[in-house]
Amino acid sequence: MIKIGTIQELREQLRPYRHQKIGLVPTMGYLHEGHLSLVKKARETCDIIVMSIFVNPLQFGPGEDFERYPRDIARDEQLAEKEGVDILFTPSVEEMYPSPVKTTVHVKGITDTLCGASRPGHFDGVATVVSKLFHIVQPDYAFFGQKDAQQVAVIEQMVQDLNMPVDIIPCPIVREADGLAMSSRNVYLSPEEREQATVLYQSMQEAKRKIEQGESDAFRIRSLIMQKIREKKLAEIDYVEVLTYPGLEPIADIGGKRIIIALAVKFGQTRLIDNMIFNL
Amino acid sequence: MIKIGTIQELREQLRPYRHQKIGLVPTMGYLHEGHLSLVKKARETCDIIVMSIFVNPLQFGPGEDFERYPRDIARDEQLAEKEGVDILFTPSVEEMYPSPVKTTVHVKGITDTLCGASRPGHFDGVATVVSKLFHIVQPDYAFFGQKDAQQVAVIEQMVQDLNMPVDIIPCPIVREADGLAMSSRNVYLSPEEREQATVLYQSMQEAKRKIEQGESDAFRIRSLIMQKIREKKLAEIDYVEVLTYPGLEPIADIGGKRIIIALAVKFGQTRLIDNMIFNL
Repeated sequence: MIKIGTIQELREQLRPYRHQKIGLVPTMGYLHEGHLSLVKKARETCDIIVMSIFVNPLQFGPGEDFERYPRDIARDEQLAEKEGVDILFTPSVEEMYPSPVKTTVHVKGITDTLCGASRPGHFDGVATVVSKLFHIVQPDYAFFGQKDAQQVAVIEQMVQDLNMPVDIIPCPIVREADGLAMSSRNVYLSPEEREQATVLYQSMQEAKRKIEQGESDAFRIRSLIMQKIREKKLAEIDYVEVLTYPGLEPIADIGGKRIIIALAVKFGQTRLIDNMIFNL
Repeated sequence: MIKIGTIQELREQLRPYRHQKIGLVPTMGYLHEGHLSLVKKARETCDIIVMSIFVNPLQFGPGEDFERYPRDIARDEQLAEKEGVDILFTPSVEEMYPSPVKTTVHVKGITDTLCGASRPGHFDGVATVVSKLFHIVQPDYAFFGQKDAQQVAVIEQMVQDLNMPVDIIPCPIVREADGLAMSSRNVYLSPEEREQATVLYQSMQEAKRKIEQGESDAFRIRSLIMQKIREKKLAEIDYVEVLTYPGLEPIADIGGKRIIIALAVKFGQTRLIDNMIFNL
């Protein structure tokens, strides 16, 4: 595995491989099994796998956890190399944003809800940095975790609208044994918070059972999940939504649609998200 | 010359030439010597020249001339072929915007002044369609006329900020014998308007002489130009500005700077722009 910090060097390294299939796994580092599953998936179709590790300040709002976002580049390097990453791209903030950002990519509509509503400007930051990474790496395929389902929807919309020559491959959520979705932010949780955080998955599992039993009223599904989460005293709900996917439009009756149940719940300072997507 | 209307066919045609130098000349058609000078320039460095002809609705505001913008595709084809264009890309509006546009590229700061102030949203439309064309064609070089100097500045900023892998080549303004800058919109002018429209170039020439004689006060240069234009009874000034280039910042004293004199003047329904750039 080659480790590269500059855009110019990355482009030079990739030049001889342009005729091969290049896969990009964009991450913010502090790797877990979720990230590694993206690399595994990339190995199936790509000859060269580039993983980027960049904690992107543009997608963090004031008061969010940009500064304290967990970082462990030495451990990340070991994990990435072991998983078969060919090039690890770890640019500095100065390398990615050498001057104040004047150009941004904005996806309207689907960014107004869920995390876009809770984190204003977040998805402009995501779309802009992903656009930059696509132009730097020029991958044939890019791999994203479905845990950030709205991010996947935003990026797929951007790629389609701007005719970006890359295939987006969404990959399933990877969970801990007790169902908690893998996230670099799980490390923030106290033991008690960590225990209670399993309610995200449990509440969606319960909703899934109700849906399988015939429940199709979005409001009732949402209420059921909120009730279940509120049983945990450390949980503070940011949002619980039942929407179409990938359009992220509100619906009353979920029958016959592709829908997402999406949650954001705070435990102390830690905001966790999770979701399930259903084809009904 | 091959004429292509769809994105997919264009990509397929270009695939075998990916290892060669591809040049893009984006236009809105109704070709004149200015456009053809871009093709001539492209011939110097590129193996394959793609010219796009697309009147982009996204960069026209309500009440602007999108509908009546001059079009003559048969004549354009002849001129493009004669000049050595290899692929003429003429997508329909439906091909470029198959669904309502959700994703836009915005360049802030330099779009607040000049045509950006007179035509709100114009440069979002320009940046977005140019971004799409870059992703569709994936050119090594793209050629733009310096008549649209602010457009060149916006696109150079976008390419830099988003790390787009393309070199922007600005090309000098091409003028009629009497100094009027070539523009597809010149065809709108009545004979009397056409005669008076020479004042744009004449006023800047006069300003140039004053600058060469030592005038360095931006306000006085601007006043001189406005006075000269106002002598023409059909001329209605939209803006006359003296700014830094490419930053487009206001300045008081132009000494030692790279500056632009930029004009937009209406003759009846026809809005003409022109500019001169000086390295002082």
